[in-house]
Amino acid sequence: MPIISAYPEPIQQAIAYLSHLPGIGSRSAERMVLSMMTWKPEEREGLGCAIAALASKVAHCPICGNYTEVGHPCHICTSEARQRDIICVVEQVPQLHIIEKSGSYKGLYHVLGGKLSPMNGKGPNDLRIAELAQRLEGEAIKELLLALSPDIEGEATANYLAQLFTRPGLTITRIASGVPIGADLTFADSATLATAISGRRVITMN
Amino acid sequence: MPIISAYPEPIQQAIAYLSHLPGIGSRSAERMVLSMMTWKPEEREGLGCAIAALASKVAHCPICGNYTEVGHPCHICTSEARQRDIICVVEQVPQLHIIEKSGSYKGLYHVLGGKLSPMNGKGPNDLRIAELAQRLEGEAIKELLLALSPDIEGEATANYLAQLFTRPGLTITRIASGVPIGADLTFADSATLATAISGRRVITMN
Repeated sequence: MPIISAYPEPIQQAIAYLSHLPGIGSRSAERMVLSMMTWKPEEREGLGCAIAALASKVAHCPICGNYTEVGHPCHICTSEARQRDIICVVEQVPQLHIIEKSGSYKGLYHVLGGKLSPMNGKGPNDLRIAELAQRLEGEAIKELLLALSPDIEGEATANYLAQLFTRPGLTITRIASGVPIGADLTFADSATLATAISGRRVITMN
Repeated sequence: MPIISAYPEPIQQAIAYLSHLPGIGSRSAERMVLSMMTWKPEEREGLGCAIAALASKVAHCPICGNYTEVGHPCHICTSEARQRDIICVVEQVPQLHIIEKSGSYKGLYHVLGGKLSPMNGKGPNDLRIAELAQRLEGEAIKELLLALSPDIEGEATANYLAQLFTRPGLTITRIASGVPIGADLTFADSATLATAISGRRVITMN
């Protein structure tokens, strides 16, 4: 445990907070704060205000659960350019943004806020499932794309949702699992390989 | 370049500021801010205020140049427990704290604010050399320990200071250079090895 008590109080506080971040130890946090000390004062105030504003100015979108400015539905829910008959279900907001960055999806989203996890006491009532049901009632949705992690809890959640929302006119899909693009097959685990083989696609057929 | 424009304004701002930090790309900054979003609001406000306070509450110690709370000399300059006849000269504040953490030095410090670097237009007047001269006049200093980096500019600065401050009763020393403790000799560069060999110490002598 490095001694950080030699720094003035505000430096110590900033270090302590930053070292709560995943992957940031007290040593990295210290380096970050010392680096901030070389910034212009207005830059430090800018960052400080931006972080403090996260608390008061950013909220979850009342429709899909994405981050948005307080009091407004998010820019995806309000966009005219999005395909409005498909909802992609994700666990958390960061996954929504990863899908957005891929540029491969132009529909709407629904953030569940986690996955079913009986071990951690997380049941259907702890997720935004009722909200999803309501949207499926109110909006003209033709497809529900379940973009949940391909792990045990993700599978269980996907199965639960598929069962719950099965009804005429609604296609329920799941993102494909398999060997990642660019990966070396030598290092693929057997579960991934099994999924990749059972989900194989036809290239040519004579 | 990842698209970050999908986030609300305060999130984008925080990401932009954090990615100015050395070793933090926009991807890591994004992960940090998304992780902050899972904090309690008061924690985010705490971090934000701590960072903003760095600008208004932390200043350089008027004596040694260390970071301190505005209006007070630093806790090292004011400590009764420190050896007051030796000054360790460092380039920047982080190096002072690295030496403090080693627990191997109990004297005073003087932060130069850099090293002589004619290539970057940094001459003696851009460093806190006049302040050091004044301290050597006013305080009863017996040793000046030059803890400058063992690179070309550090050497030049050390030589300059040694020449400038040579006088009866003042010992001027320099931290030892050599192979780092714990390092594998196989990977030591020749300059380090040459320094380590020319600076070799006697273990036994018959």
